[in-house]
Amino acid sequence: MKDSPQVTVLRLGHRPGRDERMTTHVGLTARALGADKVVLANAARNQADTVIDITDRFGGPFDVASTEEPKRLIRDFEGRVVHLTMYGEPVQEIEDDVREAHADDPLLVVVGAEKVPFEVYEHADWNVGVTNQPHSEVASLAVFLDRLFEGRELDREWENPDRVVVPQETGKRVVDPDEK
Amino acid sequence: MKDSPQVTVLRLGHRPGRDERMTTHVGLTARALGADKVVLANAARNQADTVIDITDRFGGPFDVASTEEPKRLIRDFEGRVVHLTMYGEPVQEIEDDVREAHADDPLLVVVGAEKVPFEVYEHADWNVGVTNQPHSEVASLAVFLDRLFEGRELDREWENPDRVVVPQETGKRVVDPDEK
Repeated sequence: MKDSPQVTVLRLGHRPGRDERMTTHVGLTARALGADKVVLANAARNQADTVIDITDRFGGPFDVASTEEPKRLIRDFEGRVVHLTMYGEPVQEIEDDVREAHADDPLLVVVGAEKVPFEVYEHADWNVGVTNQPHSEVASLAVFLDRLFEGRELDREWENPDRVVVPQETGKRVVDPDEK
Repeated sequence: MKDSPQVTVLRLGHRPGRDERMTTHVGLTARALGADKVVLANAARNQADTVIDITDRFGGPFDVASTEEPKRLIRDFEGRVVHLTMYGEPVQEIEDDVREAHADDPLLVVVGAEKVPFEVYEHADWNVGVTNQPHSEVASLAVFLDRLFEGRELDREWENPDRVVVPQETGKRVVDPDEK
């Protein structure tokens, strides 16, 4: 988000035909909850297009990229690396340290699908568990980002949207931003 | 969770072949982040089995049910109803009211897939947006539960697990609970 070092989310291990909607949801969650960029490994081309399309319609800035070399990206990342995994240390014990580091340094947040290579655990500055229960990389990412930004991401303003949702007690209201 | 009125998550609008993993992740997220029960609409049988299987292995209590009449369940629910939707009011403005109501009353948290019938908006006590951006029902559910329970769900203890993950700085450690 504006006024803080970049947060990039790396989605590892996308399996075509199986992880399509999960990968899309990782990308959209990264955008909605305050990250600046998502990188999709293993050529998740359609998923990248969906996230780009949402950014065109609902606003940015938000970058979408893909990589064939996710391990290299982790190794060469200039900043700190968090890997979200159910085997890691409790988010509630680690979040202050991560937040403090992120005051100065860009952050790479790695989320996997099923199997994550051991090098990822080794290269991460923190392996972090949002509980040590099996659930969802999308849920872990969401809780992690909400805690990292301490809720500030919920008030994020978007540049150049084509449409804006106006919160309603009941029903739906979507307007052209000029009428807002 | 123990010592507070029940929280049930209702997963609406499951579309076979398309929403399979999302529905599984809704169920697992509900379990991991402090809800007591998930109800799956539209006969998501395999997804129910996956959540039951995880509960058998990693512990409970957590109930899994299905319904062919989700609208009736919402209408007849004895307690308060929250519907998570990108069109709703900001979670950060609503969460205190919901938390206060939940001190006395059970809570039904409804999450949809794409199209949610208008009656759901009308019957909900609160339509709540975790941002007004399109992202993921799994992410919304996760942030909502973490805020509802103010992080207490992260320390939840599980009864009768066959296996327990022991948090690690690096790598994976899963033990028999008797050796823990």
